[in-house]
Amino acid sequence: MSLPELKALQGSNSFIRIAFEQDIPVTPRILRLVDSLPFQKLKQIPQLGFVRMVYPSANHTRFEHSLGVYHLALQYLRHFQTDDDFVRQVADSEVEIFILAALLHDVGHWPYCHPMEDMLLAGIPRHEDFAEVIISKGEIASLIDQDWSVTPDDIIRFLGGHNTTASQQFLYRLLSSPIDIDKLDYLQRDSLHAGVPYGRNFDSKRLVKGLRYSPASESLSISSKALTATEMMVFARYVMFSEVYWHKTVRSATSMLQRIVFELRQNQSTISQLINSTESDFHSLLLDADASGIAHDLFGRRRTLYKSIYETNARQDAEVYIAARRHDFTGLAASSARLAEQLGLDRQHVIIDAAPQQLEVQFNINVFDENTGTSHTLPDVSPVVNSLATDQFDQHVKRLRVFVPRQYRTLSIERQAILDALG
Amino acid sequence: MSLPELKALQGSNSFIRIAFEQDIPVTPRILRLVDSLPFQKLKQIPQLGFVRMVYPSANHTRFEHSLGVYHLALQYLRHFQTDDDFVRQVADSEVEIFILAALLHDVGHWPYCHPMEDMLLAGIPRHEDFAEVIISKGEIASLIDQDWSVTPDDIIRFLGGHNTTASQQFLYRLLSSPIDIDKLDYLQRDSLHAGVPYGRNFDSKRLVKGLRYSPASESLSISSKALTATEMMVFARYVMFSEVYWHKTVRSATSMLQRIVFELRQNQSTISQLINSTESDFHSLLLDADASGIAHDLFGRRRTLYKSIYETNARQDAEVYIAARRHDFTGLAASSARLAEQLGLDRQHVIIDAAPQQLEVQFNINVFDENTGTSHTLPDVSPVVNSLATDQFDQHVKRLRVFVPRQYRTLSIERQAILDALG
Amino acid sequence: MSLPELKALQGSNSFIRIAFEQDIPVTPRILRLVDSLPFQKLKQIPQLGFVRMVYPSANHTRFEHSLGVYHLALQYLRHFQTDDDFVRQVADSEVEIFILAALLHDVGHWPYCHPMEDMLLAGIPRHEDFAEVIISKGEIASLIDQDWSVTPDDIIRFLGGHNTTASQQFLYRLLSSPIDIDKLDYLQRDSLHAGVPYGRNFDSKRLVKGLRYSPASESLSISSKALTATEMMVFARYVMFSEVYWHKTVRSATSMLQRIVFELRQNQSTISQLINSTESDFHSLLLDADASGIAHDLFGRRRTLYKSIYETNARQDAEVYIAARRHDFTGLAASSARLAEQLGLDRQHVIIDAAPQQLEVQFNINVFDENTGTSHTLPDVSPVVNSLATDQFDQHVKRLRVFVPRQYRTLSIERQAILDALG
Amino acid sequence: MSLPELKALQGSNSFIRIAFEQDIPVTPRILRLVDSLPFQKLKQIPQLGFVRMVYPSANHTRFEHSLGVYHLALQYLRHFQTDDDFVRQVADSEVEIFILAALLHDVGHWPYCHPMEDMLLAGIPRHEDFAEVIISKGEIASLIDQDWSVTPDDIIRFLGGHNTTASQQFLYRLLSSPIDIDKLDYLQRDSLHAGVPYGRNFDSKRLVKGLRYSPASESLSISSKALTATEMMVFARYVMFSEVYWHKTVRSATSMLQRIVFELRQNQSTISQLINSTESDFHSLLLDADASGIAHDLFGRRRTLYKSIYETNARQDAEVYIAARRHDFTGLAASSARLAEQLGLDRQHVIIDAAPQQLEVQFNINVFDENTGTSHTLPDVSPVVNSLATDQFDQHVKRLRVFVPRQYRTLSIERQAILDALG
Repeated sequence: MSLPELKALQGSNSFIRIAFEQDIPVTPRILRLVDSLPFQKLKQIPQLGFVRMVYPSANHTRFEHSLGVYHLALQYLRHFQTDDDFVRQVADSEVEIFILAALLHDVGHWPYCHPMEDMLLAGIPRHEDFAEVIISKGEIASLIDQDWSVTPDDIIRFLGGHNTTASQQFLYRLLSSPIDIDKLDYLQRDSLHAGVPYGRNFDSKRLVKGLRYSPASESLSISSKALTATEMMVFARYVMFSEVYWHKTVRSATSMLQRIVFELRQNQSTISQLINSTESDFHSLLLDADASGIAHDLFGRRRTLYKSIYETNARQDAEVYIAARRHDFTGLAASSARLAEQLGLDRQHVIIDAAPQQLEVQFNINVFDENTGTSHTLPDVSPVVNSLATDQFDQHVKRLRVFVPRQYRTLSIERQAILDALG
Repeated sequence: MSLPELKALQGSNSFIRIAFEQDIPVTPRILRLVDSLPFQKLKQIPQLGFVRMVYPSANHTRFEHSLGVYHLALQYLRHFQTDDDFVRQVADSEVEIFILAALLHDVGHWPYCHPMEDMLLAGIPRHEDFAEVIISKGEIASLIDQDWSVTPDDIIRFLGGHNTTASQQFLYRLLSSPIDIDKLDYLQRDSLHAGVPYGRNFDSKRLVKGLRYSPASESLSISSKALTATEMMVFARYVMFSEVYWHKTVRSATSMLQRIVFELRQNQSTISQLINSTESDFHSLLLDADASGIAHDLFGRRRTLYKSIYETNARQDAEVYIAARRHDFTGLAASSARLAEQLGLDRQHVIIDAAPQQLEVQFNINVFDENTGTSHTLPDVSPVVNSLATDQFDQHVKRLRVFVPRQYRTLSIERQAILDALG
Repeated sequence: MSLPELKALQGSNSFIRIAFEQDIPVTPRILRLVDSLPFQKLKQIPQLGFVRMVYPSANHTRFEHSLGVYHLALQYLRHFQTDDDFVRQVADSEVEIFILAALLHDVGHWPYCHPMEDMLLAGIPRHEDFAEVIISKGEIASLIDQDWSVTPDDIIRFLGGHNTTASQQFLYRLLSSPIDIDKLDYLQRDSLHAGVPYGRNFDSKRLVKGLRYSPASESLSISSKALTATEMMVFARYVMFSEVYWHKTVRSATSMLQRIVFELRQNQSTISQLINSTESDFHSLLLDADASGIAHDLFGRRRTLYKSIYETNARQDAEVYIAARRHDFTGLAASSARLAEQLGLDRQHVIIDAAPQQLEVQFNINVFDENTGTSHTLPDVSPVVNSLATDQFDQHVKRLRVFVPRQYRTLSIERQAILDALG
Repeated sequence: MSLPELKALQGSNSFIRIAFEQDIPVTPRILRLVDSLPFQKLKQIPQLGFVRMVYPSANHTRFEHSLGVYHLALQYLRHFQTDDDFVRQVADSEVEIFILAALLHDVGHWPYCHPMEDMLLAGIPRHEDFAEVIISKGEIASLIDQDWSVTPDDIIRFLGGHNTTASQQFLYRLLSSPIDIDKLDYLQRDSLHAGVPYGRNFDSKRLVKGLRYSPASESLSISSKALTATEMMVFARYVMFSEVYWHKTVRSATSMLQRIVFELRQNQSTISQLINSTESDFHSLLLDADASGIAHDLFGRRRTLYKSIYETNARQDAEVYIAARRHDFTGLAASSARLAEQLGLDRQHVIIDAAPQQLEVQFNINVFDENTGTSHTLPDVSPVVNSLATDQFDQHVKRLRVFVPRQYRTLSIERQAILDALG
């Protein structure tokens, strides 16, 4: 393993400095990718969408985050360079794929893409799909072909999780697991810029030291010495969802945007423009295309967010919660329409919002006890992770809310009405 | 509420600067107490005893901690000054008691007093008892009588939890509860000096803002807005116990000290000297008084800690764990002696160690939901706290170990032998 | 002094959280101002313009900075509340003016306004002038009239430095002096977001404690106890200019923008649109209006900054430097044109850049020695400040450069040619 | 360069964690040295002596500092590993010497050794001399002989600066220059533990990246890109001396200790015991040996420091200051005695104190401009360093004071009396 990027990590005079006092070491071929148009466009894509409505200093972009994940990729690799098995079994070309995937994993992001993806609608691509388009052609594809020993298709296959070798499967886990470099970066970076301590509270040094290579099982393990560090990171992610990503105000704006997009879902040309836009273009596009008036409230000069008039969670009211969870986004929209009718409101004035079903506390990692030589799954040895992954996240943090325009904020609503609307 | 200390908090030119860039505002009467001999002696009492064997930079003392707790007392009071009920119902004299209690709560500390207290032996005082002696007479008593409107007895009664009024009971909870000023200071200070992020990871600003005064119930409440901040603090304490306070090496040294003290328990004059000593005196005293040879291994020029040859917890082996929990310290010492005999070792060469039974995750606090006007207990609304308080702490963190001198570290031991020894 | 904002500083549940873990306490009347359109527009005005080309994470806006300066205003006031003279002599209405001025001091900012102002051209307003327009009419004027005991004109007069009373003159110094709340905020905030330690290295606590009220002399004093803290802040500002604000790349972009604006200076309708625009509008406007092609290089999809082919400073070449300093912006533009002709280049392909003449290390503050009761000027008691203010800043940091398009970056240029061009 | 320590820096599971969240990577042979008695004794030697009287949380020891300097040695080496000339010209054995010297450079420290050394008296060794004794024999010598390719004599010669090869001379500069690893560690560590921001304010990452190898000139250079970082470090050191190391209270205690030691200077057995003692032994020894009564005031249960009744510096009163600088410690003691006689006080009740003559702002380093290929001395290109090194440090920070027991603190003293006493 003698890639120039790993050498640059040792001490390069060529680097990009970003908060929080991080010097990202860059090689000429990395710099060429960073300077490409698709990558530079990430400077126009805020890392967090509506979170800035609550935490106004969270103005960082996917650009810094992508550099941060690339930096962590090098740091994970430096750790594994001390493992002889890793060095013997993982080819330099596979390491190149991993480094490129880390740098480019968000290159398909557009403004507000997470709320749009969470709707799981047919006409809306995932940002991973869009990344494929960007990586497979044009400037980035040319640069990969020119400067690296691997192909754009290798990167796309890797990012899609379609890895045929055990080493690649292992490397993929470093980018997608409870302790992956993506989460490690965004928890800390989002916390720093939002001005909260929540996601900066785990022992990332200890975590990295605890990573274990075990290609046989095709799975990433963590040493039992880093168990607490892992618990801290899982806990940090819970707090970030609870206090930041799913803040009530953020959910209001999110559900408003989702409703606008839902109404436009057949309009493929607008959808296509949205996913190619910068943030200010995105606002203009929706203000033009939206017929419901919601875009005016959400992105107009004077923002007037919808207010919640009903709120519950699985623990407080399992029946209502489960009734809602049976629906996909289209079903919830139909339920919202029924509820609007009952309340005598316009259809676009009622939004039933439920946090994404598919998002969860991830705990799919093994803990390896070096004293006994045995492995256990993380929730098996950690009651606190187990509790976070089940009760806390799904029963407390995920909430069902009914949002209505500000002028109706004192409207009262019966539980039975919601049950009826949910069918 | 117009105490000079609260005014000094607003902006005093008289302050003591301590890590981490904290300026502790002091008034002349506070400074006189700080300059008194009993308080200055706290500079000779390390905040953490054997933790320094694992984290060698944790050299801070009870002196800084006491100043920190006093500072937090003022900050809590500043928060409650914005609550009209508090201002009306709590007398200035009660506030004086609280401030003095915060400053002086550890004035009875001696080196390694926590391990000694944890033994719960008749001849060993609690540091609270010893504080009584110091506060009720001599320099500190004179200063209180001279400078304050309350008496030394008021402070002693308050620190003992024997409070007759609802306001005092409430103030006492600020000093003794899951989110008290003592824990708030030591978690952060211990983390800073040990060089770990574990206890510096909660949102103390949000926590203070969430404190609610409710004298009727004689209990401290926290706003539901600060629920996550509270969970973070409970979690931080769990991590500190797991990784720092009850680190395996720390438990070895702790159990060695406890055995030495156990052998000396009848020797009241030595015990009395110990609790009056500075740290270096403490070492000399034990080296002189100890007949077992353990003090030589623990405090001699070349320290040789006992090694663990058997380790389990409630989750791995409930039977053994429960058998041990049935014993008080004397019982465990007798079991250790039986085990030594079985193993053919000298009595002083086997120590069965179990973490203190009485120490636990504290969660005795109510959470007040300002939207609904209802109160719940903390574990009732927080699965993660509930899980920490039960499974995680008692079944995972608390461990039973058998320690022997280093030369016997490869000795193997049968589970049945331990069960037999425990009777 | 019993303003609600000062009470909120003591412990408010209403606050806006921004990096770095700052809770800005807000009252209802402050919140109304913050929610006004002109203030919300500050979210679209980056705090730093071209600095993001070098430090890409410096994405913070004038919105957070304005909140930060308002917060510091309250903290300075809290300090002076402990000074009886201040409390007696300064009227509540004057304090209101100061608070409002702190909050609104940058409300006239537009994107890249500092580089435009630095040109000192007749047709380009100062942002202070533009703030007058915004404060004196519309939403903000209405809110001031409705919620406060002072008038919009009071704020405008104060911000203009036209203060008739000694107290107001003193308060104005808190907003405009070597240790004012504007610099105190931006040095720290810019450093945090840029990811550099340079401006976060002074002892702001000690600085605030050292502020002294002395209305007689109409000037702000600092206690000699805070002399070193003051020196540190002056030094920090020097480093920020040297390494961040006047970074070579930043100067290249700045000089390109200035040239574009210079060519458009007669076009008052475009200038007027620019100072009313958000950042993305600003880019579009210049791309449309510019005939020189420089806007394409600066704001086009693929930015191509001019490169420096000649660089000197007063220390290295006093003659050239002084020749340049004789010129105002128009003169430098004419010199650039002459130089272009000599080099056989198009006029728009040569830019002679010199750092603003009027910007300097400020040291206009008195140091009061409490032991001797005497006052001295800052440079009189601080050789290091004296040296910074003279040699270091003006002779080293301020540089003269010749910028040309990238394709001419290897062009060599004679010293005499520059002297000739400068006339 | 393939030393195990450099490999450990890449990612070791064996490390010692110290504040501030630093993991010091250790190899087995390093751990054996750390576990040796002479090195463990450093845990009993406070890093700062009397500074704790002003900053009570500054309880860190030479143990952590030594680990920190060793860690920085590895980081400097990692930087130079990217320089082919360095790798080719510097032998592994020389690197071993440098690593060992960094780890062991303070192994000869005893409590309060700096104040004693500063007296420059014949009978008092320098801690470097005492380090020779410790390294050349016993446990440390055995471990070096056993585990390393170099000899104890190599380390001693290196630490003494008696290096015959250019590479060694270069490596020595890394340990002794304006930007050496010793200062880099202590400025930051002392600041952290004292609770002040002063020494944690420079850009150490940039500094390390700016180090340049130039064995030809036998001198360390720094890239002009790191000039500001260097200035910041020099400035930080100035602030630490001004506000911490030479704080007035610290000088009082220092001058009291020096006087006690001066009186005991003929008593070689006591001096020898002192330099072999731990801190609490040191106090006891002086309390026993001192006849002047000063030790009682300084180290007794109730400390009563001498107070300053006269203070000046070179700028305020050049004549007095120069008169004092003519004297060595013995001369100043004689002058103090004459002054005591004039004042009618006991000889031991007057101490004239002057900061050490030999200590100064160091600036002996070259700055290399990569654009022009030229080198300049640091003060030549940095007016601010020049000013610090001359006026600021020697004329302002270094002060002459007259200290007397607290009971005489209101005594007034004539300037002429001091001049007369100084002869």
